[in-house]
Amino acid sequence: MPYVTIKMLAGRTDEQKRACVEKVTDAVVETTGASREKVVVFLEDMEKSEYAVGGVLFSDQA
Amino acid sequence: MPYVTIKMLAGRTDEQKRACVEKVTDAVVETTGASREKVVVFLEDMEKSEYAVGGVLFSDQA
Amino acid sequence: MPYVTIKMLAGRTDEQKRACVEKVTDAVVETTGASREKVVVFLEDMEKSEYAVGGVLFSDQA
Amino acid sequence: MPYVTIKMLAGRTDEQKRACVEKVTDAVVETTGASREKVVVFLEDMEKSEYAVGGVLFSDQA
Amino acid sequence: MPYVTIKMLAGRTDEQKRACVEKVTDAVVETTGASREKVVVFLEDMEKSEYAVGGVLFSDQA
Amino acid sequence: MPYVTIKMLAGRTDEQKRACVEKVTDAVVETTGASREKVVVFLEDMEKSEYAVGGVLFSDQA
Repeated sequence: MPYVTIKMLAGRTDEQKRACVEKVTDAVVETTGASREKVVVFLEDMEKSEYAVGGVLFSDQA
Repeated sequence: MPYVTIKMLAGRTDEQKRACVEKVTDAVVETTGASREKVVVFLEDMEKSEYAVGGVLFSDQA
Repeated sequence: MPYVTIKMLAGRTDEQKRACVEKVTDAVVETTGASREKVVVFLEDMEKSEYAVGGVLFSDQA
Repeated sequence: MPYVTIKMLAGRTDEQKRACVEKVTDAVVETTGASREKVVVFLEDMEKSEYAVGGVLFSDQA
Repeated sequence: MPYVTIKMLAGRTDEQKRACVEKVTDAVVETTGASREKVVVFLEDMEKSEYAVGGVLFSDQA
Repeated sequence: MPYVTIKMLAGRTDEQKRACVEKVTDAVVETTGASREKVVVFLEDMEKSEYAVGGVLFSDQA
């Protein structure tokens, strides 16, 4: 606790994911007082064919 | 806003997904007054080995 | 199956929610071939103090 | 109804997943009075590179 | 890890929720080999006005 | 995009939530290159009676 889920388009490098998880955890600890070892982060990749804004899939956007 | 997530068994064609996202977005815009460009849709595929009803996985159902 | 989750800012009337659920179900049935009686819809209300874009809560936006 | 989602690190065998779904369904039926045929279970696999505790991805833990 | 989310119509007693969480945890530990102290369960109540099957909200079903 | 969900026990102040959303957004922008105005954060409060670790609800823990 807390539990953080980050949903992004696929394509970030391992290095970006590693940094993202670390800095987001820092931010949660600093602002909520949660213990660092209790902060859980889940990363979820979205494909462009699974994500639409305005009724159009990203894989179909020009 | 709004954010719509549609979870289905895998196997729909790209054409079905495209139509689903478009028509669901139409329905949300028409009934809630949300701006079309703010409607977000996420599609999530489930495998038959990840989905159970009545305690039995779909991959095990006759 | 399918399972549809619709997350919106609170404030829609019961009439809007009823229409939204009905029309979204129509759209899913029409485009995916799912049986109408198997389409499940979950509505989730968000408060303005629980939703941020660009790092600012809606309750804090001018 | 009820809808149960079980998120675990990937790597369980089909036999473990089958048993997990069956026993969790038993537990829900026994304790809530829900009809067995209405209990839905979704399994979600996490990769070690998508899951962090304490700011460190599992794929980076010694 | 594992993380279990149980979504049900509101109305279960505290005693039912307590038993549900305990028995579901037992089932997960027994079938997956996870350590008991690592099993996390989230309960989520749904209102009848937020849940529809076949395009009709439960609050509207006869 | 990205979409961040932060699930925590209820009880944080508005000031803590405001800071959390801002700093988490900073962290995501800095590490993933996403545009700040595209980062969406959802906050979700859990009650102690809806959250269990090791099979025991937080509301029952000594």
